[in-house]
Amino acid sequence: MPAPENLESLFHPRTVAVVGASDKPGKISGVIMESLAAAGFDGEVYPVNPSREEVGGVKCYPTLGHIEGGVDLAVLAVPAGVVPGVLEESPGAARGVVIIGGGFGEAGPEGKELERRVRDLARKSGTRVIGPNCMGLYNSSAGLDTFFIPREKVRRPPAGGVSIISQSGSFAITAMDELASEGVGVARVVSYGNKLDVNEADCLAYLAEDESTTAVAVYMESVTDGHAFVEAASRCAAVKPVMALKVGRFGAGASAARSHTGALTGRYEVYRAAFRKAGVIEVGGYEEFIGGCKALGAEKTPRGRRVAIVTDGGGIGVGLADSCSEAGLEVPPLDEYVKEELAGEFPSYFGVSNPLDLTGSVTDGLFAEAVEKVLDGDNFDMAIVAALWGPPGLTDGLAGLLAQKAEISGKPVLVCTPGGEYSRGRMGLFRERGLPVFPSPESAVRAAALIAEVGERGGLKKGGEG
Amino acid sequence: MPAPENLESLFHPRTVAVVGASDKPGKISGVIMESLAAAGFDGEVYPVNPSREEVGGVKCYPTLGHIEGGVDLAVLAVPAGVVPGVLEESPGAARGVVIIGGGFGEAGPEGKELERRVRDLARKSGTRVIGPNCMGLYNSSAGLDTFFIPREKVRRPPAGGVSIISQSGSFAITAMDELASEGVGVARVVSYGNKLDVNEADCLAYLAEDESTTAVAVYMESVTDGHAFVEAASRCAAVKPVMALKVGRFGAGASAARSHTGALTGRYEVYRAAFRKAGVIEVGGYEEFIGGCKALGAEKTPRGRRVAIVTDGGGIGVGLADSCSEAGLEVPPLDEYVKEELAGEFPSYFGVSNPLDLTGSVTDGLFAEAVEKVLDGDNFDMAIVAALWGPPGLTDGLAGLLAQKAEISGKPVLVCTPGGEYSRGRMGLFRERGLPVFPSPESAVRAAALIAEVGERGGLKKGGEG
Repeated sequence: MPAPENLESLFHPRTVAVVGASDKPGKISGVIMESLAAAGFDGEVYPVNPSREEVGGVKCYPTLGHIEGGVDLAVLAVPAGVVPGVLEESPGAARGVVIIGGGFGEAGPEGKELERRVRDLARKSGTRVIGPNCMGLYNSSAGLDTFFIPREKVRRPPAGGVSIISQSGSFAITAMDELASEGVGVARVVSYGNKLDVNEADCLAYLAEDESTTAVAVYMESVTDGHAFVEAASRCAAVKPVMALKVGRFGAGASAARSHTGALTGRYEVYRAAFRKAGVIEVGGYEEFIGGCKALGAEKTPRGRRVAIVTDGGGIGVGLADSCSEAGLEVPPLDEYVKEELAGEFPSYFGVSNPLDLTGSVTDGLFAEAVEKVLDGDNFDMAIVAALWGPPGLTDGLAGLLAQKAEISGKPVLVCTPGGEYSRGRMGLFRERGLPVFPSPESAVRAAALIAEVGERGGLKKGGEG
Repeated sequence: MPAPENLESLFHPRTVAVVGASDKPGKISGVIMESLAAAGFDGEVYPVNPSREEVGGVKCYPTLGHIEGGVDLAVLAVPAGVVPGVLEESPGAARGVVIIGGGFGEAGPEGKELERRVRDLARKSGTRVIGPNCMGLYNSSAGLDTFFIPREKVRRPPAGGVSIISQSGSFAITAMDELASEGVGVARVVSYGNKLDVNEADCLAYLAEDESTTAVAVYMESVTDGHAFVEAASRCAAVKPVMALKVGRFGAGASAARSHTGALTGRYEVYRAAFRKAGVIEVGGYEEFIGGCKALGAEKTPRGRRVAIVTDGGGIGVGLADSCSEAGLEVPPLDEYVKEELAGEFPSYFGVSNPLDLTGSVTDGLFAEAVEKVLDGDNFDMAIVAALWGPPGLTDGLAGLLAQKAEISGKPVLVCTPGGEYSRGRMGLFRERGLPVFPSPESAVRAAALIAEVGERGGLKKGGEG
C-alpha cells in the first residue's frame, strides 16, 4: 500500500488545474471552477484547454505541461477517450488527478481497457488518481471542492470532524446536502468512483492520520483488496470511529452494485467478517448513515448503554422505550434517590419513572431540571429527550437550557421533536447549540445505539494504536 | 358491545357545549372554542360556566341542563373532581361527553374511584363518554375539533380517508401535525385516553361503517376487552385496512404504558396473535405509523410485491434494492422486451436493469418515460422512484409527468428525494399531485411493504365481509 502522505497533493493542493475548462454555461468544468471559488480555495486555479486563450477572464493553458512547476491537482473534466492523451502529453505535470467522467470500467470491455491505459500512464509518472466516474474531493479546511453540482442544488456542509468516503458520487452529494441542511460539519469528502488507483483502503489509511478527521463514514459497493482494506480500516478504527454502509448486499442490489461502478462486489458475509475484524461499525442504510454522521458530528459518546428518556409526551416516551429495547439499549428504572428528589419538586401527576413523562404542564425549566437530575450521578450514560411543542410552558428557550445541562453532565443528550412545521422549525435551535436533533423517535434511538457502540470501542478520543 | 350508531352524537354533533368555558387567555376551554371555530363547526356552540354571564360575547349557561333540548356533545374542560357534579346536576343533558382532564385512573386509587363514579353516572343517563385524560375528537368533514392545542403549534390535516384512533393524546396531535405538514388527509381522529366508556373496540366498530374512512390507524398501549377488540377489528379490517402500533411491548416500555393511562397492558405476544387473527397490520413505531398513513392516504395499493426501482442516483438505487429485499419485497430483473425498448431510446451508459439508473444525464422526460415503460405490462406491481436533484436536466416539471404516468399505469408510484433543503423543498410538488413522497429510501420502502401487505389483504376497496 502506498504511504498516505502521497495523497497530500490530492487532499491539500496549493495549485489546481481544471482540464477541459470552458465558460459555456452549464459546462461541468465551469461548475467546478465556481465550486472552488465558493469554497474559498486560495491557491492558484489554472484553466487548461488547447482551444481557448482565456476562461472567465483568467489565462488558459493549452496543456498541463505549460503550467510552470505543474500543479498539485488536476481535475479532468474531459470525455473518457481524451483522458489518456492528457496524461501522455504532460507526464507528471500533475501530482494528483481527479477523473470526473464516466465511460470507463462501468461501460464494458473498451472502458476497462481505457482504465488500464490510464492506470499504466499514472503509475509511470507517479501520479495519484481519484476516479474515474466520480465527483472527486471536498476539503472544508482547504477550500477544496471539485464537486460539479451547483451549490443552489446541493449545499456544502460547514467544517467539522466527520469525513466521508464514497464509491458513489450521487450518494456522496446527497449525504453532503443533507448534512449541510442538518448543520453537521465535515472534514473531507472523497467520491472515488471506479477507483482505478486510489481506493477505500488508501482513503482510510490517509484519514487515520488526518488530524481534522474525528470520525469516518464509508459508503461502499465493493472492496478492491480485502487484505489492504482490513489493514487500513483496522488502523483507522483504532484511533477514531469508522462506520460503514455496504450496499449491494442481497440479490438485486448485489447485481446492481456490480454494474454501477463495474466492480466485483463479493459475498456480503465476507464484508461483515471484515468489518468485525477491523472494528468497523456497520450501518444498514441511508437513514442510519446520515443519523450516524449527525451523532458522531456532535462529538460526544456515552460510556455505556443506559438511556434516560425524558419527554412531555407519554406515548412517545413509551414508544422510545420500546425502540431502545429493540436496539439493544437499556432503559433502567430511576434510582430511588432521584425519584424522591424529582417527586419533591414536580407536580404529583408527573410520571416520575423512566421514561420520565413531564406531561403538558412542563416548562422549559422543569424539562432542563429533569434532564440535569437524571444525568447526575452514575445511573445513566446518556439521555434521549423527546420534546413535543403543544404545552404552553415550552418556548424556544428550551434548547439553550438543555444544552447547558448536557454540557454540565458531560453526557450525550439526543433530542427528537417529531411533528409538523412548528416542530421542524425548532430543530435548528438544538442544532445550533450542539445538540444532535432528530425528526422521529426511531432516528434518535438508531443514533443513540450507534454512539453506544462507538463508546464501547473507546469513544471519539484519539487513543493509542489498537 | 353497544351499537356504533350510539357514537354518532360524538362524531357528528350538531350542538356542542364547552363546560368550564372562560375567556381568560391561555385557558384550555378558550382554545377548544377557537379550535371549533377554526375547524368551521357550523352547529351551535354553548359556553357553560355557573360564574359567568357570557364568554367571548356569547351567552353562557350555568349548567348543561339550562340549554334547551340539551346538546349532542359536551366537552368538559374542568378539574377531575368537578366532573361527577357536572353529570349529576344535569343527567342526560349531553348525549355524548368528552372529558379532557387528567387526574383519574392514571393518578392512583382515588382517581380510579372517581372514574368508577363517572362511569356509573354516564351509564345511568345513557351518556357516551370519551376520555378522561384525552384530547377528544377531530372530524374533518363535520368541522369538529376539541383538541386543545392551538393551531399555530399543531396544524390540523385536511379532509381525507385515513382515520386515527389513539390512546395517547400527545401521540395523536403529533401525528396530526406531521400529517398536516405532509398534506395527508384524515377523516376522524379520536384521542380516547383512559377510555372509561368508549374504547378502541367501539371506535373500530364505528369506523368500520363510517363511509368517509378508507383506512384506520391505531395507536394503543392496552386493550380493554380482548374479545371485543378482535371482533371489532376483524369487522373493520374486512372492509378497510387497519394498521396498529402497539407500544409498551418490552420491559421499560411495558411498565411505562401501564402508568401512562393507568391500564393493564398485557403480554405483547397476545397482542400479536390478536392482530393476526383480526387481520390488523402491525407497525413497529412512529416512523412506520406516519409513513403508513402517507401511503394509505394515497389510496392506491399494489397487487403484489414486485417493485421497479427507477433513479438517477446509482448508489441510492442499489441501497433501495437492498432495503426492498430486507422488507420482503421483490426486485425482479427487467423483462428482455422492456430492456430492449429502453436500450433503444436511452443512452448506452444508462444502467438498463432493475434498479434502473438513469444517471446524471436524466431529464424529466426520460424519467417519466422509464417509469411508464417499466410499469406497462405485468412485470411490476409498483415503482419506487428515487429522484436526486443534481442533474441539470431535472426540473420541477418532473412531479407532474410522473403523476401522469402513475395515473396511466394504475399502479402505486412512491417517490423518495433524500437530501437537503433543495430536495425537501421539492417534496410538496409530488404531494400536491397525489404521489406519496418520502425523505429517505428506507421510509419509502417501509411504506411500500405496508401497502403490499394491504394489497395482499384485498386492497383499499371496500369489499364484502371477510
